Amino acid sequence: MTDTKTPKSTTVTAGILLIGDELLSGRTQDTNLATIATFLAPLGVQVSEARILSDDAETITSTVRTFSDRYDYVFTTGGIGPTHDDITADCIARAFDLGISEREDALAILRPLYEGRDFNAARRRMARIPDGASLIANPVSKAPGFQTRNVFTLAGVPRIMKGMLADIAHRIEGGDEVHQISVATTNVGEGDVAAGLSTIAGAHPDVSIGSYPWFKDGHRGINFVARGLDEGQLNVVRLEIEALIDSLVCVGRA
Amino acid sequence: MTDTKTPKSTTVTAGILLIGDELLSGRTQDTNLATIATFLAPLGVQVSEARILSDDAETITSTVRTFSDRYDYVFTTGGIGPTHDDITADCIARAFDLGISEREDALAILRPLYEGRDFNAARRRMARIPDGASLIANPVSKAPGFQTRNVFTLAGVPRIMKGMLADIAHRIEGGDEVHQISVATTNVGEGDVAAGLSTIAGAHPDVSIGSYPWFKDGHRGINFVARGLDEGQLNVVRLEIEALIDSLVCVGRA
Repeated sequence: MTDTKTPKSTTVTAGILLIGDELLSGRTQDTNLATIATFLAPLGVQVSEARILSDDAETITSTVRTFSDRYDYVFTTGGIGPTHDDITADCIARAFDLGISEREDALAILRPLYEGRDFNAARRRMARIPDGASLIANPVSKAPGFQTRNVFTLAGVPRIMKGMLADIAHRIEGGDEVHQISVATTNVGEGDVAAGLSTIAGAHPDVSIGSYPWFKDGHRGINFVARGLDEGQLNVVRLEIEALIDSLVCVGRA
Repeated sequence: MTDTKTPKSTTVTAGILLIGDELLSGRTQDTNLATIATFLAPLGVQVSEARILSDDAETITSTVRTFSDRYDYVFTTGGIGPTHDDITADCIARAFDLGISEREDALAILRPLYEGRDFNAARRRMARIPDGASLIANPVSKAPGFQTRNVFTLAGVPRIMKGMLADIAHRIEGGDEVHQISVATTNVGEGDVAAGLSTIAGAHPDVSIGSYPWFKDGHRGINFVARGLDEGQLNVVRLEIEALIDSLVCVGRA
């Protein structure tokens, strides 16, 4: 936790590592970041940074170490299946100088899946878990994720990743929840509201206000998003942004 | 350029910085990474890493510096509009210890847009360009991006960002193009192919082979993707993967 804090509010942070060449080549569109972020927000955990990494053991290992030091919680997605390109578990073990082996608790989960079929070395590879890590239940396809210190290692397939989050909520000690309000406009340009918006932002230093313009089929508009700990203050900001917009539309119509 | 290169094959790398709180909160789903990666691939540039950063000036500034040193080309998206949360241009200037001001070449592009309307300070803010940077044309909404050394600073709105890429292709000195083949299967589990796939991967150390399982509506399958410089070798890999799959289906039916 690198930010300065008043005793009254606690900011709990997370870093997310999305692992896989397919994300960097543009072949696969990540959706796991948004799923994890919206899972964490009501628990009072803010995602501070995300990185998309290639399947390179050195990079994964060193980044896990950096993120584990820097953020309260770390989530990794991808690279825990049975094939040769699934190297995340070994990288986590190396990041923390831990041993790694096929663990009996993980084998016990996997073995029944392959009854009468070949429970081969590749499948047993999914039971390779760093020493001391605790398993994370996988309600979709059984092969578990695992928690090593403050790092949660999850599957890359979105449906499986999402299923694993159910076994994580109870492990999180969140801080104060950051609330969010949004105001949508059409037919307003950012240049017309920038000065007024800056005044509102200056008057509410504890609220983070974002302005997100959109353009579609010859139309345009802005979505304003304000985030902060105090819901009362956010409602004031909402009213001020709405008043700013109303004033502009009136000018335009005159 | 930090990587070692043989004279025969040249790997040219890119790093991508996706800037904006809205990407980390899960409110907005990034699509710019995939657009940039698929634009760069035929030019012979591989995306090595991407980071999603919050609207924090220190983090953006230091990461731009790191990426500019580490990768041949750097792309940033987001934070170059007229509102108070648009801080990317100032961060780029600070990263390279450059001055920054409203530049006449950028003002000349923006001024005609606001003829008869208020060309106010906020709108002129979009003409704030680091000293020495060259402008990148914006065919969609005019306000330009800019190139500072090896860093391309682009809009965050996907349609505008994509439009700017047309003025970047001619600035890129690419390396050897990495080609890609894919083989799709259904009804095959990764555990059944992992050993064979590992053998294929071992026999073709210059080819990177990924295995991407999918699960949908009770069905499952795998997409195999192989990437490498030599198209002939990729075709051999394709045949070997197809043979591996065929052998498995036959066994299953026996």
